[in-house]
Formats: sequence, C-alpha cells, structure tokens
Amino acid sequence: MRPDPRETDPLSDVVAWRAGHIVAIDQTALPGEFRVLHIATVNELVDAITRLAIRGAPALGVAGALGVALAVAQSEREGWTAARLETEVERIAGARPTAVNLRREVLATAAAIERGPAAVEAAAAAVRDAVIDASLRISERGARYLSQACGTRPLTIHTHCNTGALACLGWGTALGVIRMLHEQGELGKVIVDETRPLLQGARLTCWELGQLGIEHYLACDGAGPFLISRGLSDAVVVGADRVAANGDVANKIGTYALALAARRAGVPFVVAVPESTIDDATASGEQIPIELRPADEVTRVLGVPSAPRGTRALNYAFDVTPAELVTAIVTEDRLIFPGRAAGTDAAAAAPKVSR
Amino acid sequence: MRPDPRETDPLSDVVAWRAGHIVAIDQTALPGEFRVLHIATVNELVDAITRLAIRGAPALGVAGALGVALAVAQSEREGWTAARLETEVERIAGARPTAVNLRREVLATAAAIERGPAAVEAAAAAVRDAVIDASLRISERGARYLSQACGTRPLTIHTHCNTGALACLGWGTALGVIRMLHEQGELGKVIVDETRPLLQGARLTCWELGQLGIEHYLACDGAGPFLISRGLSDAVVVGADRVAANGDVANKIGTYALALAARRAGVPFVVAVPESTIDDATASGEQIPIELRPADEVTRVLGVPSAPRGTRALNYAFDVTPAELVTAIVTEDRLIFPGRAAGTDAAAAAPKVSR
Repeated sequence: MRPDPRETDPLSDVVAWRAGHIVAIDQTALPGEFRVLHIATVNELVDAITRLAIRGAPALGVAGALGVALAVAQSEREGWTAARLETEVERIAGARPTAVNLRREVLATAAAIERGPAAVEAAAAAVRDAVIDASLRISERGARYLSQACGTRPLTIHTHCNTGALACLGWGTALGVIRMLHEQGELGKVIVDETRPLLQGARLTCWELGQLGIEHYLACDGAGPFLISRGLSDAVVVGADRVAANGDVANKIGTYALALAARRAGVPFVVAVPESTIDDATASGEQIPIELRPADEVTRVLGVPSAPRGTRALNYAFDVTPAELVTAIVTEDRLIFPGRAAGTDAAAAAPKVSR
Repeated sequence: MRPDPRETDPLSDVVAWRAGHIVAIDQTALPGEFRVLHIATVNELVDAITRLAIRGAPALGVAGALGVALAVAQSEREGWTAARLETEVERIAGARPTAVNLRREVLATAAAIERGPAAVEAAAAAVRDAVIDASLRISERGARYLSQACGTRPLTIHTHCNTGALACLGWGTALGVIRMLHEQGELGKVIVDETRPLLQGARLTCWELGQLGIEHYLACDGAGPFLISRGLSDAVVVGADRVAANGDVANKIGTYALALAARRAGVPFVVAVPESTIDDATASGEQIPIELRPADEVTRVLGVPSAPRGTRALNYAFDVTPAELVTAIVTEDRLIFPGRAAGTDAAAAAPKVSR
C-alpha cells in the first residue's frame, strides 16, 4: 500500500484551509527559509498567486477553490453585495492567465455559493482531496509506464521546473512519478534544470528531492539538451500548465528545448498532469495565452542585477511543445500518446489512449 | 571604408601588450565596473584565464600569444632555465582545454623563442593584428551572407554568449556580423540569451550592444528555442570555441538547443569564427574535450546561492552542435555549408565552400 501523503508528508499543508483562512508555504522564500503564509483576504491571495508564492497548476487550482471559500468568508465579514463577491471571485480566477486549473476550480467551487458558506468550504475541500488523489494515481501510472518504456536500470530522469508537493500537493505530478520510481528501487538519479528566470528547479525541486533522499544533479537550462544528446538521461518527465485538445503542451519556459533534444536522442518525453490540466476548449497550442511577465525577472537574478541598467527583456513564462514531440501524457485516468497522431487533425489524438 | 577599430574603438585594449606586461579588461567585473587588469606574471595570466576575466576563443588566442612574451620577459627577470620556461608556456596553453586557439597561438608564438625576446614580442603582436583583421573580414562576409539569405527587413538576430570586442577583439565574430548589419541599416534588433552559468550574454553582450546603440532584448536561455519557434528571429548567429573538421561546432553551453529550434523553424543557424577556430586535427565533435567546470557556478548565481547547500551540479561549459544543423560557417576567408554534407563522411564537408 502506498502511504497517504495527507498522513505522512511534512508538505501536506502546501495549500490548506484553517479556520476561515488559507495557509500556504511561501515558495518564494525556499530553500533559504521555510515560511507559512496566513492568507485572510482576496487581496492577499491574489498577491500570493501573482508573485508566485503559490504556484504550479494543481496547487493554483486548490488555491482558487479555497479562494472562493475565502471570498465568501470575507464577504460575510464585510457585508459585500453579490456583485462585489462576483467581482472578487473573478479577480482570483484571473490572477494567472495561462494555468487553466485556476479558473476552472474557481468556477466549479463558485457554483456552490448559492448553497451557503459551509457548502462552499466543502466543495473547496473536495477539490483539494481530488488533487491529492490524482497526484498519487499519476505517480503510479507514470512510474509503471516508464518502467516498461525504458530498458535500462537504474534510471536517470531529466526534469524541469517544480512539479512536486509544493506545486501539486500530494506527491506531485512529474516529481511524483520520479518519487514512485525511487520507491520502487528503479531510480538512479535525477537531473534538474535550474529553470530560469525564477529558479524553481534549483530552489524548490532540489529542496524536495533532498527531503526525499533522492540523488540529483542541477544543470543550467541551456545544458539540458546537450546532456540529453550525450545519452545522460533515460527519459524527460515534466508537468504542464495547460494541455490543448490536440496534445500541444504549455509548460514552463525551457520545456520545448528538452522535447526537441529528447526526440533527436530517441528518449521518451513524458508529460505528467491531472486531467484538469487538459483543456478541451483549446484546440491547439497556438490558442493558449502565453503570459508575458516583468522584464526584471530576467534582468535580475535572485534580486541582483545581471544586465546593464535599462536592459529590456522578453520574459515569456511558458512555451508550447507541439503534440508530435510528446511521447506520452500521463494522467490519473489514462495514458495518451499524442505523438502518434502527428500529421492528422486535432481530434485524432483523442482515441490514442490506454489505461 | 570600414573604420579600423584599432583607431576608433574604446575597446581596442581588451587584451594588449604594454611595456613588458599584458593589460586586459576584467570581464568578470562588467557590467557593474570597468576594471583593467595589469598582468605581469604567468601565474596572474593563468588565473585571469581560468576565472574567465579573459575569455572568448580569439581573445584567448591573443592572450596566449602575449602570454609567451610575458613568460619570456619573466624568465629574463627571474633567470629561468629553458625547461622551466617550457613548463610555464605549457601552463598557459593548458589553462582552458576546449578553446583550440589558446594552445595554437601559444605554440605558434613559442616557435619564436629561440630568436630572442624581441622576436617573441613581434610574433605576439602579429597574432593580435591578425585577430583584429580577421574579425573585420568575418563581420563583412557574415553580414553579406545574411543580407542575401534573409528576405525580411529589418532583421532580428538571435545570439548567445558574448562574441564581440571583449571576446574577439576588433568587432568580434557573431557580434561583429550583427554590428555590420547595423552599420548597413539592415538590423532591427537583437535577442540575447543571458547565457548561464556566467551570464556573459546579460553582462557583456547587452553592455557592448548598449555601447553601440543597437536595440536588444535579453531572454533566459530556456526561452530562446520558443522565441525562435514563434518566428521572432530571422536568424541565429553564434561564435564557436572549436569547429571540428566535419563541421561539428563546440560553443558555449545552450547553443545546441538554438540549433535544434532554428532547424525546426527553418531559420538559418550561422556560426561566425576565425579560421584559427577550425581544428582539422579533430575529426568530429565527439573528439572535442568538453570542459567540466565547478558546480558552484551553477548552484550560485552572481555569488548568491540558488540551490540548497550541498547540491551537486553538472556544469559542462560547452555543447556540440552537429554539422548537419549548421546552415553556414563564416570565416575571414570563406563560407562553409556543413549542413549540406549531412549523411556523408567527415571529409565531404570540405568542398562545400564559397568565397
């Protein structure tokens, strides 16, 4: 039996509900400092989401659901009109444009508002439980797939950004797959991209892997494709912020280069996501809005200027990996092989599924 | 007539000989501080090369040539044996393993030792003059090629690392090509990869482009391939630390990903180098030694820790782009099209040349 992370993990309170407010680990403070935020207002929540103190598509979905409960509680305290409540809920839904989970879970939870505050809290708690359950099932299915797809042991897995408990609750998505391979004794080591500009790989993934006792090596983002070309990785496993209906994958900037290198090296490129990340309403990657973030995330590193004063930057937060470069998408319910649909129309990807 | 940078450029003293010692701009201090090193001993020179205060393949070649003159001067002062002088010269040649220019120019200049100190100084000065001449001819030929190869105006050029006067003296190599396009009124803007781990793109290339009044935008290394995929660049132009006989290109880590993206987007991937960078003695990229540098360049950024204490890193300084992904190599003497030799043996690349 797998352990239930709600019982056993120190990170079970990444994003959680405590007596009318939200607690969240401030991911901007790691790895230097372990700091828990106590969020009591919509303003504080939107700020935490915008400055990436809460981040990762599944965690954003939970934050959005709990955010609706928070907005309702604040509305009760401050006597908001229904229109004001609606506006505040919409502010939460729109705090990050690319992550589809945030808006979806906000809307799903907001449907309970007419049944009163207790119903909203229950709906939000159910969203959180479902996210944790999904992470465990993704971890199991992904590890089973890679165990079959890769012939060598022990495995070296290359990953990007942060997709563990901090981003996804439970075991995480891509990092959950890695953790499961580790638990099964099939993992040798992990290569972690530092993931500029905000260094989630260096700051968060290395920290989580350290907590789990998993051997890992940090690499600059520019090095990933070369390491893959030299046969150092047996597979690339990443998460995603949104998957379009045709299997195109929007994920943290830097992912696309890994997919290009993996294809050329003949190495599996696997995307581990909850079903909620798959957006059937978006036909292809071209329709996914790509968030353009402030230049100073690029012109400064950890607060220190790296470029001459006044340097402009192109700071797209995500890139899009075309479906044909994706070997497999692993969700809590199924395996999808979008690469096999290459050259056909978008709808053709749907049947390429196994469980 | 092009201006001669020895007369007109403030950066003409990047690496130069002054009355028995070497002066060099300390490239680790830019862009915050403009500091000129006065190098009087082999130890100081090896230290400057190792910590990248002097860097860039052509600049390293000049530093190596002047370094032999420095070693001879120090030998005269301190009364070294011939064996000691040979050992010290070899230390200079071996200070960076990947850059072929360093060892070549050291050996070429050392051949003058038997003719006395004045002959060595003259040989070293000739190496420096030739490097500056080569940079101007590379700039002209590269701009002429891109002007023909790219249909749109104004051009957006994507570049990596630093290949301007700081790295190459004169106008530089890749950045010289960009500067020539600018002088000809054909350039719109430049996209500059920050180039982790040491951020030469952010620190040095943005600084040089700012000095030249050329519009530019900084991007994280992971973003380059996505920007190319979205049609934001008309061409990728980079330098190289070594080109193998078959056209495989060793350049700063992160280059290979740009080549993969350029190929997929149908955009020219152009390598601008002096002939001295082409190493006929190395059959292919697999034989190029790739320098593995200290982990803390990756686990720290600008001196600030980015990962938990004790995190290990894979810090390869260079990657290898296979010849078949290289659209053109531009040198002071010729254009080479290694990509056209794809699938044939190494020697087949040689005839694919135009002038």
